[in-house]
Amino acid sequence: MSENKIHKPKTISGFPEWLPEYRAVELEWMDKIRKVFESYGFCNIETPSVEEIDALLAKGGDTEKEIYTLTRLHAEENDKEARLALHFDLTVPMARYVAQHFGNLTFPFKRYQMQKSWRGERPQKGRYREFYQCDIDVVNIDDLPLHFDAELPAVLFEAYQALDIPPVELRISNRKIIMGFLAGLGINEPGVITRTLDKLDKIGAEGVLKMLAAAGVPDAVAQKALAFVNIKTPDSTFAEQVKSLGVTSDLLTEGLNELTFVTDNLKHLPKGGVIADLGIIRGLDYYTGTVVEARFREGNPMAIGGGGRYDDLASSFINQKLPGIGVSIGLTRLFGLLMDQGAIKPGQKAPTQVLVVLPEESRRAEVSATTQILRAKGLNVEMYHRDAKIKTQLAYAEKKGIPYVWFPPFKDGQPHEVKNMLNGNQAQADPASWKP
Amino acid sequence: MSENKIHKPKTISGFPEWLPEYRAVELEWMDKIRKVFESYGFCNIETPSVEEIDALLAKGGDTEKEIYTLTRLHAEENDKEARLALHFDLTVPMARYVAQHFGNLTFPFKRYQMQKSWRGERPQKGRYREFYQCDIDVVNIDDLPLHFDAELPAVLFEAYQALDIPPVELRISNRKIIMGFLAGLGINEPGVITRTLDKLDKIGAEGVLKMLAAAGVPDAVAQKALAFVNIKTPDSTFAEQVKSLGVTSDLLTEGLNELTFVTDNLKHLPKGGVIADLGIIRGLDYYTGTVVEARFREGNPMAIGGGGRYDDLASSFINQKLPGIGVSIGLTRLFGLLMDQGAIKPGQKAPTQVLVVLPEESRRAEVSATTQILRAKGLNVEMYHRDAKIKTQLAYAEKKGIPYVWFPPFKDGQPHEVKNMLNGNQAQADPASWKP
Repeated sequence: MSENKIHKPKTISGFPEWLPEYRAVELEWMDKIRKVFESYGFCNIETPSVEEIDALLAKGGDTEKEIYTLTRLHAEENDKEARLALHFDLTVPMARYVAQHFGNLTFPFKRYQMQKSWRGERPQKGRYREFYQCDIDVVNIDDLPLHFDAELPAVLFEAYQALDIPPVELRISNRKIIMGFLAGLGINEPGVITRTLDKLDKIGAEGVLKMLAAAGVPDAVAQKALAFVNIKTPDSTFAEQVKSLGVTSDLLTEGLNELTFVTDNLKHLPKGGVIADLGIIRGLDYYTGTVVEARFREGNPMAIGGGGRYDDLASSFINQKLPGIGVSIGLTRLFGLLMDQGAIKPGQKAPTQVLVVLPEESRRAEVSATTQILRAKGLNVEMYHRDAKIKTQLAYAEKKGIPYVWFPPFKDGQPHEVKNMLNGNQAQADPASWKP
Repeated sequence: MSENKIHKPKTISGFPEWLPEYRAVELEWMDKIRKVFESYGFCNIETPSVEEIDALLAKGGDTEKEIYTLTRLHAEENDKEARLALHFDLTVPMARYVAQHFGNLTFPFKRYQMQKSWRGERPQKGRYREFYQCDIDVVNIDDLPLHFDAELPAVLFEAYQALDIPPVELRISNRKIIMGFLAGLGINEPGVITRTLDKLDKIGAEGVLKMLAAAGVPDAVAQKALAFVNIKTPDSTFAEQVKSLGVTSDLLTEGLNELTFVTDNLKHLPKGGVIADLGIIRGLDYYTGTVVEARFREGNPMAIGGGGRYDDLASSFINQKLPGIGVSIGLTRLFGLLMDQGAIKPGQKAPTQVLVVLPEESRRAEVSATTQILRAKGLNVEMYHRDAKIKTQLAYAEKKGIPYVWFPPFKDGQPHEVKNMLNGNQAQADPASWKP
């Protein structure tokens, strides 16, 4: 067995992993996001990575082809096990969880979930097959107060704010506005128009007008729709601008009032952080009210997170009307994007704050006792693993970026000393009272 | 679409999920374990859930039948993608990671990893198909100092100590001792004997003697082997007891010296926490030195964690000798065991510390401002989501176990008040200076 065949390891396309100093940053991000979620009272849940395929597909849609199904390598024949697959988002599992544990949850149910999801898409830059999402949702029975339409964007904004990333802005709209606007224009099947308008960023105004004309939409309607989606205001003045287009409907009024409530209640966020943007449509069919998209304020306008309100997400699992609103941070996507740009400053290679030197093997017990004193104070402490030359031990601390090296007495009666590796200062110190 | 088919949700056998108040406890456990791991300078890494099947099977063994392979639901024909599967432990992915990133890591490489693994075993009580493991390993190039043979059991012990669980003990031995002992008895193929001795807990002394006799092992050897595995001492006196059996070999001496080093360097742990137990064999073939098993001190002697030293785990991935030592906490197994016993005290249903009352809709802006002041101080704060009756708002706080309810001014000029929900006390308070 001494001659093994070597399987040269390589990264599998779409399944990212990071070196320790970058994972340290990702982990710090996750801690900070979690802290913001919890500061608004969201509880954590975790669902299995695996659901029954039927549950995942209950809502239909075009996710089917992306699902990874599971098979036991040596499944016995006539295996009667349920057909299982990895979840492709955290929304379907959350809906299943809420339905399943309905009687044991407190409503409005505010939960966060930070887990990996999997999609067997063709890998391409910025797309991952395994990725973290950080989701918060509020779900209630029968109706859900508008309060949460303002709260969830605020949480989302604060989560980005907690990270060391370029400034983020939220673009917010409300599905009732565009639906009500199109209804006011006499459009009863708005699908083709909304889908075309959603492409504005990609194909431009001319492209949109061309496509709408090709679809038989009258030019007057197309022009108004285009003017509509170009309304973007930092406050609630969007309502005046919509009214000036001369279109009215009850649904439109309802949507304008809701979005006004939301922008009014986000006034405490920094200037430029929130933009009412009637061009935000978001493709997902299940959104029925507030929709939000997060972007960097500068550069590529791609979404780095977002979400919206839905009327009834768990209807395939339970005979209850459960409206909700949820937002999601595409953590791996965001992190990977900044990694690709070289914009992530690496963290420490190890969490160690103090390396305790082992001067010689005979002093192991005393050195170990010093280490325990420092560790009991909440410090992260490594004791060097053999009585190597002091130079070697210092080099290890330097290589790992450990900020302090502790010199315990080399002989009984000598004092302890600690060296600050950043500025080179070295001074006597008492392990019981020293602080970094 | 109003009449949906309902897919009644149910738990998939072997894939656990917990209610929020129990997930809160699991999450707290993970935080505490992580803190202990980091206090010894272990860095975190995370590997994808997915590896190439060839990499997972590189070491052989009987894990093959447990592997879950992945297939895209609608994979195109002639798909040339790598054959992928979910990892079944964190050791193989760690070995692959170390080999792959060899040039970018600092050795000795001390890493922790807290991730789910998957095994398609027949589900049974205490066995999960998806489960968290919390692993630490130290890997070095060419040789690994004995220092870590004492350090890793200490970390393991402290991790258990940090949890609110019954007292745990570590049973420690060294493979060289039993191998050296059997070599001293003239046994060159010890496999059948060690495998039989490993069953002692299950089949008893008589069963072991019967099996050994059936395998043609001379009775004198069997009796000595049985006496040997019954040696259990709270300190390093095991060495004397082994010597009294009158068997010697160089490997035996080496093993006894190593285990003596380990027990001597674990003397700081609480009395009864560490037992040198020569009956600890641990089935995994790749262990070559120190082996450790964690158990509850009372009750069922099943392993709730453990590990050991290996000479060369990454040899299937890289042409380097990389010895290591690692220990693992079977988190889901441990948590599930105590859940089954009703021994997990539920945590809070939400992390909320303060519920801020909304007396009426017209005061929303002021109430929201109060909420922000409290939250900026690091508190977890919910603002009630509508101007319901105060009784309703208090009932919500009670149902969720929120310890404080904040009453902002109902009219301008009134003071703030805060109610302690545990003792019912209510008093004036200033949001800027109040502490729970």
